[in-house]
Amino acid sequence: MNTPEPTFQDVTAAARRLAGHANVTPLLEAPVLNERVGGRVFLKAENLQLAGAFKYRGAYNRLSQLSPEQRAAGVVAFSSGNHAQGVALAARELGIDATIVMPSDAPAIKLANTRRLGASLVIYDRKTEDREAIARRLSTERGATLVPAYDDPHIIAGQGTLALEAMQQLKDRTDETADAFLTPCGGGGLIAGCALAVNALSPTTRLHSVEPANFDDMARSLASGKHERNNPNATTICDALMPTTPGNITFAIARRLLAGGLVVTDEMALAAIEFAWRELKLVVEPGGAVALAAVLNGVLDCRGKLVVVVLSGGNVDPDTYRAALSRSN
Amino acid sequence: MNTPEPTFQDVTAAARRLAGHANVTPLLEAPVLNERVGGRVFLKAENLQLAGAFKYRGAYNRLSQLSPEQRAAGVVAFSSGNHAQGVALAARELGIDATIVMPSDAPAIKLANTRRLGASLVIYDRKTEDREAIARRLSTERGATLVPAYDDPHIIAGQGTLALEAMQQLKDRTDETADAFLTPCGGGGLIAGCALAVNALSPTTRLHSVEPANFDDMARSLASGKHERNNPNATTICDALMPTTPGNITFAIARRLLAGGLVVTDEMALAAIEFAWRELKLVVEPGGAVALAAVLNGVLDCRGKLVVVVLSGGNVDPDTYRAALSRSN
Repeated sequence: MNTPEPTFQDVTAAARRLAGHANVTPLLEAPVLNERVGGRVFLKAENLQLAGAFKYRGAYNRLSQLSPEQRAAGVVAFSSGNHAQGVALAARELGIDATIVMPSDAPAIKLANTRRLGASLVIYDRKTEDREAIARRLSTERGATLVPAYDDPHIIAGQGTLALEAMQQLKDRTDETADAFLTPCGGGGLIAGCALAVNALSPTTRLHSVEPANFDDMARSLASGKHERNNPNATTICDALMPTTPGNITFAIARRLLAGGLVVTDEMALAAIEFAWRELKLVVEPGGAVALAAVLNGVLDCRGKLVVVVLSGGNVDPDTYRAALSRSN
Repeated sequence: MNTPEPTFQDVTAAARRLAGHANVTPLLEAPVLNERVGGRVFLKAENLQLAGAFKYRGAYNRLSQLSPEQRAAGVVAFSSGNHAQGVALAARELGIDATIVMPSDAPAIKLANTRRLGASLVIYDRKTEDREAIARRLSTERGATLVPAYDDPHIIAGQGTLALEAMQQLKDRTDETADAFLTPCGGGGLIAGCALAVNALSPTTRLHSVEPANFDDMARSLASGKHERNNPNATTICDALMPTTPGNITFAIARRLLAGGLVVTDEMALAAIEFAWRELKLVVEPGGAVALAAVLNGVLDCRGKLVVVVLSGGNVDPDTYRAALSRSN
């Protein structure tokens, strides 16, 4: 790959593009969480972002830089759901036709929301079809721009604006910086973008990706120093965090800047959903809850530390959500 | 009653006391809600307040003004749950013993949270016992201070800080003021406090209380000009909004400053809970959702208007919540 890595300057440029478009999501502190972990945890509530996840940041940053000719030809993306909604919303705002390739087993809420945002959907079977091939064929046929979910410098820079915002909010509130910064990790776009911002603003902050068990390709790749792949038959309730292997650009950044990858179980993610519901009054999806799960279960020891935890999305089907809540009875 | 009415200056003084103690809760705007109602709606997410509801504001404002002798003798309150938790948390922070009189049929989550915050609970039967008499007896026996849930100038002034904050956030975001300001209404502490702040900052803003059907005592009292009572056998899922009649101070303020009272059904409140879950990623309790329900159902016509809606609390039992979500299947 000769695609250039984005820089911190790309993140600050993305923040200027997003100003007035993306929500400035709140950074929340909850005494009950601090007491439980013995430190100070600040939650970046990115489930309150437009379209219910951080993905709008990268999508808008990417699409707003297309030329008039590229805009006229439309965009194509493949996604299990949150990138789909982010691209669909950004495309609608910019007057661009969007076609999204989504798996048939994506959460119904994500399929419905993507459709409602005006995108055309192409459904594929996760077990037997290659979504990337379908998307590439569609984009070639139409001359449309393929918008990758994570392995793209503009997407990564856009996601990094979340950390830029969070670190500024943290400074305004505490006049301190973070000891650690945790984000959920699928293909690595969010953690890579955040790493660029956090490393530039606070080089001592330890950055961690958090993945569900069975989809811990980033943690294993960071440990081995090369791209590790997940078992193609693996499953998780964290539908947003099911990549094959880390992206090329995202892994190059992660190798250089991350302290390491953390892993939580599906059970921990469900318990974190229930905690966020009961104690924080926030709706979080399984993949959006894994970083919170890591601090709740001591996968990262937060005692005496100041830790930023990203709640990356809240698009969850009612059945999954009700199942998580039934834990509290 | 010769208790003096609080003033706008009492609200600003309360805001100074609460600074650094209460959360500054976010004011959120959601395009999907704006599209649905044809106006601009800003949601004051007070479900993200400490202890999950606005009640901490009034409780902290009241308790922080007690003398050392009064603090040593402790406080007593009666509440179906949110005032209980607000008083318990403020008392714990200030090192004051708190005894809370709660009905046996209060949501389990509210009973459990109040206990966890270190308060002593006295449980009574809503049908056969008089909670006010129990609380007065306890406070007399112990020399403890009775902390009313709403009909108290310091409590009202504390709740008013929510509107002070919201109107400032709205100005920062839009450089405009609100056409209308809606809050859920039980005994009237929240709407009365907010009315003092909103009326001082923006006299043209129309203020509305929102109540559940069968507990529309404020709406009927505003219409008739005198205290109207609810049927003692009436029921609602909005456990936080079940007063007998408006408070004396709260009604005096409401009569002077409100444009009128709005009423929604339990069914509308449940649908608003589901909407907040699906579209806003916020957990709201039935009583906390009634003002949102009023705009979602056109009880207040928002077309072309800028409206502030308070989501006043998020303490809801899992069974009630799951029932609300089952609507979206």
